[in-house]
Amino acid sequence: MSTRDDDRDLASVARARMNGKVKPLGSLGRLEPLAIQLARHLGTLTPHLDGCHLLLFAGDHGLAVEPGISAYPSTVTRLMLQTFLEGRAAANVLARSVGASVFVVDAGVAGEAIESPGLISRRIAPGTANSLRGPAMTSSECAEAIDTGAALAREHAAPVLCCGEMGIGNTSAAALVAHKITGVELAHLAGPGTGLDAAGVARKRALLIEAAARTASALPAAQAMAEYGGFELAMMAGAMRGGVEAGSVVIVDGFIATASACCALSLAPHIADGLVFAHRSAEPGHRHLLAHLDVQPLLALDMRLGEGTGALLAWPLVRSAAALISEMASLEDIGVTAPPT
Amino acid sequence: MSTRDDDRDLASVARARMNGKVKPLGSLGRLEPLAIQLARHLGTLTPHLDGCHLLLFAGDHGLAVEPGISAYPSTVTRLMLQTFLEGRAAANVLARSVGASVFVVDAGVAGEAIESPGLISRRIAPGTANSLRGPAMTSSECAEAIDTGAALAREHAAPVLCCGEMGIGNTSAAALVAHKITGVELAHLAGPGTGLDAAGVARKRALLIEAAARTASALPAAQAMAEYGGFELAMMAGAMRGGVEAGSVVIVDGFIATASACCALSLAPHIADGLVFAHRSAEPGHRHLLAHLDVQPLLALDMRLGEGTGALLAWPLVRSAAALISEMASLEDIGVTAPPT
Repeated sequence: MSTRDDDRDLASVARARMNGKVKPLGSLGRLEPLAIQLARHLGTLTPHLDGCHLLLFAGDHGLAVEPGISAYPSTVTRLMLQTFLEGRAAANVLARSVGASVFVVDAGVAGEAIESPGLISRRIAPGTANSLRGPAMTSSECAEAIDTGAALAREHAAPVLCCGEMGIGNTSAAALVAHKITGVELAHLAGPGTGLDAAGVARKRALLIEAAARTASALPAAQAMAEYGGFELAMMAGAMRGGVEAGSVVIVDGFIATASACCALSLAPHIADGLVFAHRSAEPGHRHLLAHLDVQPLLALDMRLGEGTGALLAWPLVRSAAALISEMASLEDIGVTAPPT
Repeated sequence: MSTRDDDRDLASVARARMNGKVKPLGSLGRLEPLAIQLARHLGTLTPHLDGCHLLLFAGDHGLAVEPGISAYPSTVTRLMLQTFLEGRAAANVLARSVGASVFVVDAGVAGEAIESPGLISRRIAPGTANSLRGPAMTSSECAEAIDTGAALAREHAAPVLCCGEMGIGNTSAAALVAHKITGVELAHLAGPGTGLDAAGVARKRALLIEAAARTASALPAAQAMAEYGGFELAMMAGAMRGGVEAGSVVIVDGFIATASACCALSLAPHIADGLVFAHRSAEPGHRHLLAHLDVQPLLALDMRLGEGTGALLAWPLVRSAAALISEMASLEDIGVTAPPT
């Protein structure tokens, strides 16, 4: 780990290096501050990010039994997990397209344990409890899920880790967790999820407000996660922290992953430089969380699928930013003096 | 070539196929209409876009002798061409990062012909004439450049072709060509280019208005290109048309490439389905041209470098959209009925 002063020095050297590249000043736009961030986080002026793993966490939610929480029943989580294992979901297709590997984790899907050689089984329980009635999980279950995520990020380390999720009801869990940690209003965070209409969103919002009323208006991050989170959300928060601490760059997917990032950043603010936000979801709450964190994702393609799909699509951009600072010639190399700016 | 009715049928089958994929309706956002466009253009429900070439056209501009046209002298075009050949410019680095091949074309760089085994030499002349004083090129030079571009797109065919450019002064040429073809005001199209300040932009704008006054307020596309264009712009327009007609998907880079696309679309409106717009440039005129064409690029990263850099970064998204419609399982496959929408 580098010290804060070293970080600052490296960042200014990295900035000078990007400014001196063979291009008009600033003409690589947002890839320039991204390259500088990567250099600072990785402690090198020549970062290489060849290799990307997607950790894809699935879990079920007790809250999903409430009518109006989701357009789909909880059984779909299990069906999707099966589809991930068959390599035929959007996340698998995109991972093949960009050259990433997918690791599917059962964090706590409802029903019997799934037997499959391709599955990483880390079931905390067969789904969380209904957070409208009481805590979604115990504090020890929550700690176990966070620690498990961190361990998985180390076991499946890669230069770049994408984190994704699947879990019917988890836009509700994400909204509640993020609300309790950040103070952003549920009116902003409760959205259509997999496809509720306006009346459906109003019903969902009322349920979330009722669930939120069970506890204090603000909660510490781990408690917010235990009261309202999901096993896949908690594991993802742990993987973000563990991944960055182990030296990976972690790409944060969409709305739900950003709720996990809020938790991870609250527990470990020093990981901020290792996180790259991928895609601004069409789920309306996402822009509120992004504004709260003061971050701007690389992509805005109106997607709202989760599974790490946005993170996978952002990976080529992240790898490219690293390659630019590492490999481009400088103006000096070709004998051009930069014009005054 | 398919007929218009076939196209419509294929588009509606492709739309049904995307709607039936194992995801909430519409949740892949802008990748869904892109996948449908690709299916329609390529005439298949299972498009595969594995393979991408960048045609990188360099040319010089007589107009660049006018003080205030560019922050850099014309000699920089030649230096950049050398840097492309050495594989050390942004375009080369990004091409390696995303797995594309670069073909560097001398369309008409000022000075002596450059001898290099890696260079495709198709010099129309050593730079255009000064379009403030008279036509940039003769109509036969313009036709030769367009035909050469089309031939190069066939000779270096790939499932996906990116088109990029380098040429000091070519934001001015692009602004003038686009103005004469589309009618968008020069006040909107004249911008900072490689880095002019506000006073510099005002001087550049006045020069462009003076140059535009030489000819009728609107011109046919080929004439606009001859009067004000560049050899690299004309060749790029030809490559866009030739590439799409030969069955490639062509990714249009930024502001200058979009000016060439305006020319290509005016000459051959049927190629529209084969063009994908990559990146909204920070050059302010770009959004006006995009609005005129009623297209929305995939990326908006505040870049303004050209060289095909935006197109290269969009390629993984285009390839991914094709993979999604080709490879994802359907809801029916996993036994889920889509909720009413």
